[in-house]
Amino acid sequence: MPPTIPDIVISRLPIYLRALTRLAQEGQTVTSSHELGLRLGISSAQIRKDLSHFGGFGKQGTGYQIPYLIEQLKHVLKVNREWEVVLVGAGDLGSALAHYRGFANRGFRIAGVFDNAPNKIGTQVGEFTVESTERMAELIRQRGIKIAMLAVPAEHAQEVADALIAAGIHGILNYAPINLNAPEHVRVQYIDPVVQLQRMTYYIP
Amino acid sequence: MPPTIPDIVISRLPIYLRALTRLAQEGQTVTSSHELGLRLGISSAQIRKDLSHFGGFGKQGTGYQIPYLIEQLKHVLKVNREWEVVLVGAGDLGSALAHYRGFANRGFRIAGVFDNAPNKIGTQVGEFTVESTERMAELIRQRGIKIAMLAVPAEHAQEVADALIAAGIHGILNYAPINLNAPEHVRVQYIDPVVQLQRMTYYIP
Repeated sequence: MPPTIPDIVISRLPIYLRALTRLAQEGQTVTSSHELGLRLGISSAQIRKDLSHFGGFGKQGTGYQIPYLIEQLKHVLKVNREWEVVLVGAGDLGSALAHYRGFANRGFRIAGVFDNAPNKIGTQVGEFTVESTERMAELIRQRGIKIAMLAVPAEHAQEVADALIAAGIHGILNYAPINLNAPEHVRVQYIDPVVQLQRMTYYIP
Repeated sequence: MPPTIPDIVISRLPIYLRALTRLAQEGQTVTSSHELGLRLGISSAQIRKDLSHFGGFGKQGTGYQIPYLIEQLKHVLKVNREWEVVLVGAGDLGSALAHYRGFANRGFRIAGVFDNAPNKIGTQVGEFTVESTERMAELIRQRGIKIAMLAVPAEHAQEVADALIAAGIHGILNYAPINLNAPEHVRVQYIDPVVQLQRMTYYIP
């Protein structure tokens, strides 16, 4: 793949993959950029343009073969394999993530849950026994884990992120409501419900 | 405000507001686009350009008065007031959201938690007693609530969204991993951790 594809294009591919997977579950085998666009509220021209970065995946007039397009998108996004993920923070949110069944079949599996609170360490969340954050780096190195989800309070997020990066993490999904400093080679994505809500209220009369 | 400000600009304002609030908590009273940019990994030119849509808020060479800029951004985003929000879905994620203390002081307050499962209705999550989704529309209409958070399984998300919109909701923060159909006047924002993770793996060697 050329390395010059805009990140905004990359950000839409998981949305396409999710919609195509849903269509496949509903029993459909062929779709069009028009149908996909209607489902997603994205123009069909945009979808065709996005996919053209990777060769197009469809023939003019015959639409897209859904299973083929799913496979190709999984390949591009590198989720045609399963990534192990560490989860740091076993509070309410961390616990909800540990129970979340939506990771399976979409490329991810939680490999361990960590917290630094003595009253959390050793407790069970879902199928996991919470381990001390002191053991985090060991698991990351041992298993070559590249991705972490961070569900710790804002005041601890940077120090935990630093430890994760030092241990070899390349991608952090940060739920703490704070911006992280990270070196160039580390991707950080943010999930903050208030940021999304504030982006909405601007538009509400 | 002119209605032509790109949504990508609006999407950055909550990030600026969050970082400025943090600086204020740390005791700082003045900042610059340069300092803010370093914190956020955004160029100072971008920040100045974004803020110039609203008049600029700062004088060349003297930086930004943090409390003033915070007030102005809150005003633009309409979070200089408190919005009541309904939460639908009292599973693991809904429960984590009901417990989340990060809404306070950022413009939002959960006004009610709803679920349709008989074994959930009447139970306590945080400070809320879970009510039947049948009573949802009543609360929304009574209190003029405009915003909902949707934490229900994908297969129920569209029907719940339809009911919310019919009751008067203008903004939905959707945690269900599915795209929603909604009329023009309704803003939908999505939070799906797998979409964010897949956007990361593309870049991880």
